[in-house]
Amino acid sequence: MEKDNIQAYLLTQFTNVQYISNYKPTSFAFCIIKEEPIIYASSMDMEIAKRDSSIEVKEYEKFDVMISELKKEGIKNLAIEPSLVYSTYEKFKDDFNVSSKTYIEKQRMIKRPDEIKNIEKATEIAQTAFKELDISNRKENEDVLAFDLLRLMIENGASGASFDTILVSGSNTSLPHAIPQAKKLETPILVDWGAKYNGYCSDNTRTIVYTEKEHEIFDIVKESHDKAIKAIKPGLKCCEIDKVARDIIVEYGYGDNFIHSTGHSLGLDIHETPGFSVRDDTVIEKGMVITVEPGIYLEDDFGVRLEDTVAIGSKAQVIGDLPLIL
Amino acid sequence: MEKDNIQAYLLTQFTNVQYISNYKPTSFAFCIIKEEPIIYASSMDMEIAKRDSSIEVKEYEKFDVMISELKKEGIKNLAIEPSLVYSTYEKFKDDFNVSSKTYIEKQRMIKRPDEIKNIEKATEIAQTAFKELDISNRKENEDVLAFDLLRLMIENGASGASFDTILVSGSNTSLPHAIPQAKKLETPILVDWGAKYNGYCSDNTRTIVYTEKEHEIFDIVKESHDKAIKAIKPGLKCCEIDKVARDIIVEYGYGDNFIHSTGHSLGLDIHETPGFSVRDDTVIEKGMVITVEPGIYLEDDFGVRLEDTVAIGSKAQVIGDLPLIL
Repeated sequence: MEKDNIQAYLLTQFTNVQYISNYKPTSFAFCIIKEEPIIYASSMDMEIAKRDSSIEVKEYEKFDVMISELKKEGIKNLAIEPSLVYSTYEKFKDDFNVSSKTYIEKQRMIKRPDEIKNIEKATEIAQTAFKELDISNRKENEDVLAFDLLRLMIENGASGASFDTILVSGSNTSLPHAIPQAKKLETPILVDWGAKYNGYCSDNTRTIVYTEKEHEIFDIVKESHDKAIKAIKPGLKCCEIDKVARDIIVEYGYGDNFIHSTGHSLGLDIHETPGFSVRDDTVIEKGMVITVEPGIYLEDDFGVRLEDTVAIGSKAQVIGDLPLIL
Repeated sequence: MEKDNIQAYLLTQFTNVQYISNYKPTSFAFCIIKEEPIIYASSMDMEIAKRDSSIEVKEYEKFDVMISELKKEGIKNLAIEPSLVYSTYEKFKDDFNVSSKTYIEKQRMIKRPDEIKNIEKATEIAQTAFKELDISNRKENEDVLAFDLLRLMIENGASGASFDTILVSGSNTSLPHAIPQAKKLETPILVDWGAKYNGYCSDNTRTIVYTEKEHEIFDIVKESHDKAIKAIKPGLKCCEIDKVARDIIVEYGYGDNFIHSTGHSLGLDIHETPGFSVRDDTVIEKGMVITVEPGIYLEDDFGVRLEDTVAIGSKAQVIGDLPLIL
């Protein structure tokens, strides 16, 4: 911030405020990182903000009062998050030189050991719940099983799911973000699920295949998944890992059926930066935690996706111990 | 749009895209309302976008391609949503005259009869689930009961909860947005919950009181709730309804303990505009659906909140039939 001649950095995204202060807003908050950092919290959050925050908390009263307090401190150049909504940006833009900065996204890219432990614990909970779920007999409906999986995660210590569980089957698997339906399981069965623990997310996908064609696609996705993970090391660019995963699928002639990027970072949010995608040239560093999740989707037929989350040290270490072949 | 000399209106918020096109994005989409409206959808959404959208869908490839297509059509003045994130705004601002417009928020303020039906059905599901939940014996933990309530909503036909269920008790009720804990129910018991049905939200709060002090606070909140609902009619300003609710609580000496606004609109999102708040001078119109939810919060002691959702016709009609006194 000093180098950029920025006197204050405004954080409003709940997980950014949580990351910096340990207080997660429930309605809105203006967290201002400056010489003497401060959080303007809503009146309804004051009790938890005072309880949880490591940064001084003040009750938000009026926008103009906050602005004049900041101006009184001589703040001219104000940094904002790229995720700030336009209507809030608009309120600040006349009083300050506003510029969008990714300081906090960059800091959050590299996970501290305690953050990695939380992600490991979330993964352990999610995978234990998955093992306890009885899906192989295919007697239940998708939506009931998705719900059971959530219940099992909570019983194992999760505060909730890290995103809406995708537990789908048959032709529903050809949609990467499908919604579980009130229908009996068909084949293949695709489960993309995660737990939340202590604020941190986990993310895994398994596909259980039955027919010869399903096995054939599975083997390609597995090769892509395994080789991409093996290729990860600090110093390479994220897009190079996407290329490793994608090239294998292209080689087998399914390039057009791999319709998303290879992976995304996770932490307090389920989608963080950087990601293993065609356009992301971020250099991989130790401490990053990123998913590897190649998939092949055959429209109106079926899809296969395999996803693990890796913690990056001198190489990539898969978090959790759930086998790919079930 | 014509009056403002706007040639195109960019929608990115998922529920705005859903409202306009019936397709709800799962990762990202650029929906552009213009002479010939179009949605640029992500490759992974193409299958559902083509299935659900009433607007022409095109696969999003590169940002520059999209921009040049828009420029080729002679689009100069581009409207954006107030909720657009800064990083996306930044990408459009050099090629177009960008201004923030609330056309769609304004349209969404007035619910169509089919939207009100969906909100009614969501409320019916949520209230049925609540009636089926056994909380009065106070034998279970808060978090288990919160989970049971979600399960019951789904069994009654909800696609999920419209927000994280607040089922809390004892001193935990003094936090408006408290999180259910792994602890046995104490008194009072406050439940703020809602179901999602066909994309639409419901929202209710009930507080079950036991002690004399709890009853005393309950009666004040109930008076505030009832009189505010009675006061609602088209032509008044939203802030006038907040004043009715607030004045009663102030009268009894608890003004400082009513630490949020009196209500918010709901629909596809759980929080929409307008709201019954001190600062909202929107004129109330027929077709609006808004919550009325006064509360009194005694720090470290307990809180009481009562919430109903009303559909506004010539006066306010409470949605659902769950009594306030349980």
